Amino acid sequence: MAKPTDAAWMARALQLARRGLYTTHPNPRVGCVLVKHHRLVGEGWHERAGEPHAEVHALGMAGEAARRATAYVTLEPCSHHGRTGPCAVALIGAGVQRVVVAMQDPNPEVAGRGIAMLREAGIEVNVGLLEEEARALNPGFVSRMIRQRPYVRLKMAMSLDGRTAMPSGESQWITGPHARGEVQRLRARSSAIMTGVDSIIFDNSRLTVRAAQLGLEQAEAVAARQPLRVVVDTQLRLPQAAACLREPGRTLVATVSGCDRQRRKRLEAAGAEVLVLPAGEHGRVELHALLRYLAEHERVNELLLETGATLAGAMLDADLVDEMQLFVAPTLLGGEARPLFALPGLTRMAQQRPLEILDIRAIGRDWRITARPERRQD
Amino acid sequence: MAKPTDAAWMARALQLARRGLYTTHPNPRVGCVLVKHHRLVGEGWHERAGEPHAEVHALGMAGEAARRATAYVTLEPCSHHGRTGPCAVALIGAGVQRVVVAMQDPNPEVAGRGIAMLREAGIEVNVGLLEEEARALNPGFVSRMIRQRPYVRLKMAMSLDGRTAMPSGESQWITGPHARGEVQRLRARSSAIMTGVDSIIFDNSRLTVRAAQLGLEQAEAVAARQPLRVVVDTQLRLPQAAACLREPGRTLVATVSGCDRQRRKRLEAAGAEVLVLPAGEHGRVELHALLRYLAEHERVNELLLETGATLAGAMLDADLVDEMQLFVAPTLLGGEARPLFALPGLTRMAQQRPLEILDIRAIGRDWRITARPERRQD
Repeated sequence: MAKPTDAAWMARALQLARRGLYTTHPNPRVGCVLVKHHRLVGEGWHERAGEPHAEVHALGMAGEAARRATAYVTLEPCSHHGRTGPCAVALIGAGVQRVVVAMQDPNPEVAGRGIAMLREAGIEVNVGLLEEEARALNPGFVSRMIRQRPYVRLKMAMSLDGRTAMPSGESQWITGPHARGEVQRLRARSSAIMTGVDSIIFDNSRLTVRAAQLGLEQAEAVAARQPLRVVVDTQLRLPQAAACLREPGRTLVATVSGCDRQRRKRLEAAGAEVLVLPAGEHGRVELHALLRYLAEHERVNELLLETGATLAGAMLDADLVDEMQLFVAPTLLGGEARPLFALPGLTRMAQQRPLEILDIRAIGRDWRITARPERRQD
Repeated sequence: MAKPTDAAWMARALQLARRGLYTTHPNPRVGCVLVKHHRLVGEGWHERAGEPHAEVHALGMAGEAARRATAYVTLEPCSHHGRTGPCAVALIGAGVQRVVVAMQDPNPEVAGRGIAMLREAGIEVNVGLLEEEARALNPGFVSRMIRQRPYVRLKMAMSLDGRTAMPSGESQWITGPHARGEVQRLRARSSAIMTGVDSIIFDNSRLTVRAAQLGLEQAEAVAARQPLRVVVDTQLRLPQAAACLREPGRTLVATVSGCDRQRRKRLEAAGAEVLVLPAGEHGRVELHALLRYLAEHERVNELLLETGATLAGAMLDADLVDEMQLFVAPTLLGGEARPLFALPGLTRMAQQRPLEILDIRAIGRDWRITARPERRQD
């Protein structure tokens, strides 16, 4: 049974896990605390794929003190031989007496087997403490394991009258430097950044993480991993000279079968990787298939969608947006400026797309609204 | 000199003044407190035009105790013989020793003369305590006196993507009942409600204060005064059957010289008052002239603008919007739905209209954003 002080130690483990926010891709963020006689004897977090898991760090720090200690882990200890040995085995070997687990691992390779191993070894295991907080740390990993697609976070910068750019496409800058810093951190925590080709054509955005704009202590280390850039480009209109093709990291151009062979070759020569998918409705890239590909083959946990009204509307229409972060600038751009979402076919109030607003807060002179689309009933 | 306890008594006087929020039109909201030996001996507020001023109520309550008392008034006592005698004279006659005034009366008929009368009678007068709060109580009265135009508050109900109605004009209801209650109270505190004729044609809105929806204790008394309804209607397209023409209170239809004589007669027969103004740019109603008329002839302090993108944009373009109250519903209506503001000619980011956001708060399931357009420098 969980004890009253358990929550405080688990909160500490969650804090540790959060230190891996920008670096664990494609692994989940995990923290671990070892406690004996009400004293912390070891702690650790998973920092980077290929490096030790949180439990291994904590056990290493505790040494002999791990014997008869209680372990708090934000995610079920692994039972499989990955790049490191199974953490469940390590905990058993160290003589840990009790293990408190925030959430079961959604990874089908683990899925309760780590917990079962511990219990079989006679260790008391409590599962579910601060589970919601633990899930919130890894929305992408959970989504990829359970739904076989990334967690999609849509970011948009808009004026108070819901406009993302002037009629010409001009949009730099609607929001201020604080909001742009937030966007840099959103990019850095994401496995991939997705956009439509028109957004690149208009803004020539690089879609990169810039250390200088991150406002993080470990900025250089974080920016060393550039999220995968994904450009949805049915007709392969991406210019060879696009800035994003000359940046560190990979650019994946998603197109449809039957695309122009010459353009494809030119883009590949310019450094792009071209992904050909079967065409969906209206001959466009089928978004469900693309997201499935990104989860399976690129192990994309969190996907940041930074794009214009057409792709944003299509993603919303396909029920593929999990979260919106709208950065709202205190300005008006007028009724002819570009809209947030193209939602063709939405003509009656009854068809409106309801949202749940989770948070509104000031970010410098701008405001950030975090919202979630309500799933449609039909 | 003001004393430390003065602010607390003035705050009480401001609270009293606020009780007249919905009823004093066209007069300002004023409160008065009389204090002697640190005890309240009288208090009052102005409730309704034609009825006694705040000072008269407070003096009546205090009786003989007013002698050598300190009076706290949120607005300079009047010096002129209006419907009641000058309050400055009444305070002198009652033997008050000191008068603390939050703000000088912006009314040119008073403008410091009340304070001068008190000082000439040997009374100590302190001016300026909680002045900002006192001004905020009467933005309309101050605007009318100083700028000869009403204080214009623009109210809009919008989706999170900045849309006020479907492409068809359908808009009932974007926001929830709590937000609609707020709008009722905004109407009730206003001297007049202004709209464009198209808003009436689309929604057939009555533009009335409904006691049942006010959520106020004195709802019936408040709803007894219906704000003047002002319809901007260059071509006199207002339907004779419009619901607002059958409601209690007056409807003023503002049009331009050269308007259709038959339509005018029909509208007058249906109960409208038609105001003919010289035509402005593009043959439209000149908005500055209309607001000047409303201040001078209708003594409109606060004007609530409830309208569509065209008139809202024109008012904003004419720098005639003092405050915006945007009720934001957690929903998306899509890029083809109706915009918040038509701002023709706004094509470059450099021309954007910056706002200052003063407040964001939850109203039921919706959010209310209070903002103020920054005045243009050019």
